[in-house]
Amino acid sequence: MHKTDFGVLGLGVMGKSISLNIADNDFSVSVYNRIEADETHIVSKFIHDNSHYKNIYGFTDIAKFVASIERPRKILLMIKAGNPIDLVIEQLLPFLDKNDIIIDGGNSLYTDTTRRSRCLTFKNVYFIGCGISGGEEGARKGPSIMPGGSINAYKQVAPILEKISAKDKNNNPCCVHIGTDGAGHFVKMVHNGIEYAEMQLLSEIYAILSTSHTNEEIATILSNWNSRSEKSYLLEITIEILRKKEGNDYVIDRILDKALSKGTGSWSSKIALDLGIPSTMISSAVFARYISTLKEKRVKFSKSIKKKNSLKSINHKSLERAYGFARTINHHQGFQLIQKASENYNWDLNLSEIARIWTNGCIIRSKLIELSVEILKNHSDYFEDHITFKSLISSEKHIVTTLQYGLANRVPLDAFSVAHNYWISITTEKSSANIIQAQRDYFGAHTYQRNDIDSSEFFHTNW
Amino acid sequence: MHKTDFGVLGLGVMGKSISLNIADNDFSVSVYNRIEADETHIVSKFIHDNSHYKNIYGFTDIAKFVASIERPRKILLMIKAGNPIDLVIEQLLPFLDKNDIIIDGGNSLYTDTTRRSRCLTFKNVYFIGCGISGGEEGARKGPSIMPGGSINAYKQVAPILEKISAKDKNNNPCCVHIGTDGAGHFVKMVHNGIEYAEMQLLSEIYAILSTSHTNEEIATILSNWNSRSEKSYLLEITIEILRKKEGNDYVIDRILDKALSKGTGSWSSKIALDLGIPSTMISSAVFARYISTLKEKRVKFSKSIKKKNSLKSINHKSLERAYGFARTINHHQGFQLIQKASENYNWDLNLSEIARIWTNGCIIRSKLIELSVEILKNHSDYFEDHITFKSLISSEKHIVTTLQYGLANRVPLDAFSVAHNYWISITTEKSSANIIQAQRDYFGAHTYQRNDIDSSEFFHTNW
Repeated sequence: MHKTDFGVLGLGVMGKSISLNIADNDFSVSVYNRIEADETHIVSKFIHDNSHYKNIYGFTDIAKFVASIERPRKILLMIKAGNPIDLVIEQLLPFLDKNDIIIDGGNSLYTDTTRRSRCLTFKNVYFIGCGISGGEEGARKGPSIMPGGSINAYKQVAPILEKISAKDKNNNPCCVHIGTDGAGHFVKMVHNGIEYAEMQLLSEIYAILSTSHTNEEIATILSNWNSRSEKSYLLEITIEILRKKEGNDYVIDRILDKALSKGTGSWSSKIALDLGIPSTMISSAVFARYISTLKEKRVKFSKSIKKKNSLKSINHKSLERAYGFARTINHHQGFQLIQKASENYNWDLNLSEIARIWTNGCIIRSKLIELSVEILKNHSDYFEDHITFKSLISSEKHIVTTLQYGLANRVPLDAFSVAHNYWISITTEKSSANIIQAQRDYFGAHTYQRNDIDSSEFFHTNW
Repeated sequence: MHKTDFGVLGLGVMGKSISLNIADNDFSVSVYNRIEADETHIVSKFIHDNSHYKNIYGFTDIAKFVASIERPRKILLMIKAGNPIDLVIEQLLPFLDKNDIIIDGGNSLYTDTTRRSRCLTFKNVYFIGCGISGGEEGARKGPSIMPGGSINAYKQVAPILEKISAKDKNNNPCCVHIGTDGAGHFVKMVHNGIEYAEMQLLSEIYAILSTSHTNEEIATILSNWNSRSEKSYLLEITIEILRKKEGNDYVIDRILDKALSKGTGSWSSKIALDLGIPSTMISSAVFARYISTLKEKRVKFSKSIKKKNSLKSINHKSLERAYGFARTINHHQGFQLIQKASENYNWDLNLSEIARIWTNGCIIRSKLIELSVEILKNHSDYFEDHITFKSLISSEKHIVTTLQYGLANRVPLDAFSVAHNYWISITTEKSSANIIQAQRDYFGAHTYQRNDIDSSEFFHTNW
């Protein structure tokens, strides 16, 4: 047997899909899965199911798997983030040679990636922390790929990763070297954070519209939106979801209203807290999921609340504008977070390129992301873009209308609310934070700056 | 010289105040400060300034300081949280004996406290992570004290800590053993988190009222509130702040509107994210501070916004009710976070006792906290208390009015908004989170639970 071009370790949904994608692109690929417990037959079943592929080779012995790959080896880990990554690296190391490359394709915490990257440098092995977005279908047909790590290592894997990735409208790969160490996983994390808030906005729109519309009607309204500037993958699948039937029932009506989460939204929020960036959209989405899980309390407490009887319909055009407004704030906040991390970690990230590789293959692909490629070429802050800023100003009345509807009809609008508050705050010259500084100085002698004296000086009042 | 009863290491504002408090209570106290750089004369100046005290002994040599204290020694660290704590522990260890007790009185991260606690066990030294609230004045005259660690170690220090602490309305000390390892610092952290949101609410009230009232008028309005159920220390000092003049100017008008923060609010938010608790009030307050610091952007972006000319006045009674509503949600969320941590870390925390030691000495002392002592005797969830729940229901219209005012007049109301959304969400039987679960299943095959089948099962739809 000839040596293969690439190795994939871990044959879960994503690992299988990406292996087939690689094989489709005429690279030969070695695949490995452990044979513990319920995973005994995974490799043989995968090879059997795909026996028409002549360039996929299956292994259940890790030494043989590694030996089957051409040097410098490129081994993509498609396993659960966290400890399993460290364990598998330990298992692989004895069989690796100098300049071999391990690629972690999962949603690892970027600080773990930085740590692993540094450890492996001492073993002369390269480590690429690689965000991959697009779900099962993306992995199979072309995901958006966000690799971080040494540029030299990236050059080795680029021919394969760029080939299997989605392509943008100019047919360039939706895959680019993001930056050193944990940069790729950081950017993927924020991608997912933005995704959380986009999903939350759609669920709030559903909450508003479902007070006076059927699933079919909502799908029709959203279809109209999807033909205009708010077109996106998530909007598109939401329309399909609303129309999906199982017998006479709509599937959506049978799904329990408790939203679970896996970590990237929470991580994004936590890192924003650390970096001092007000990522209110992402955290509102994470917290809204947490509240949704308190179903038993919701059922109990709701019994004492008088339901509103007559719900007025909302102007759909207004809601569409509010949606666009909130999405812009969401993307703005997400890229502010990336920009801050770039400065903090000296990653020198290219925001426009990040937006470009998000134009296809990934979950948050949309017309807005297309537009963002241009905006972010000139500004790291969406508000600095004249057209965007003017559009936000003219949309303000629509988000106000939407929030008024929520207030009048008891519809919680967590993400819409924080979008509006953020906008109002950042366009208000004089905030009320002087009260907070005064309180801090009163009880803790924390001192304050003045607005009439050079603000680098700090003062204390004997209250 | 006789051996002293207690040692205080670190003579910053808080260390000095607490040392005098201890001396006032007829305990003898050894005080130590390092003599580096600008701290050379701190000890001698402190001893000189307080030469009328005959029970305070100053040291600049750490060995002599330790040797001066009666065994088992009780040494309170009043220094900056973080690395300095570890460094000072290293410096102290060679001079300590078995069963000596180190007390960390700063705002240390509770996980650090747990780690230190475990390390010191191996050295036969006790470690008490001790939250102290009340600012300079509290430390001097009687703070609220939240000690965590071994109960045996607590018993040794209890006579002193309980003596110097504030007293509740029944004259019991506002100091109680909170729980093992990091429990004391955790509870202090959440105390500060609640404080963040309380301060944010007051700043939002100031934002609303200052659109149509002078500082004096606002102070008068708040004074009326402070004679009723929303009475609190923070409200009281806000009134004083509003009235404070410097020559002809009100001090508040000269304070720069950028609010800084030191960590405990951000930590509370991050830990809530980890524990799955929707602490939306605290995080909204932290993020509002972050946004306030973007002053340059605010000034710039505000220039394109047309100001509202005629601002209508808001009904003060309604605003007062909204304030009470939001404060209840804030305290509810804070105690939910404490309760979750208690379960998670097996701390077996007594929520009512925690409220009780917060009734005096600390920054968030208030009539609501007094009330909470009783509520939390029977329920860990404020909403389970019939009177509280009814009051929230009847206040709902007032928070709606307040938010409508904010919408109409471009006043950002971050904390009020999330209070309202949380309430609406948790009293709504059917949320819109089924859309999110459907999306997650669509693109990531994450599966979902159903509302018509036992919800322990998970399903996947071939969308």
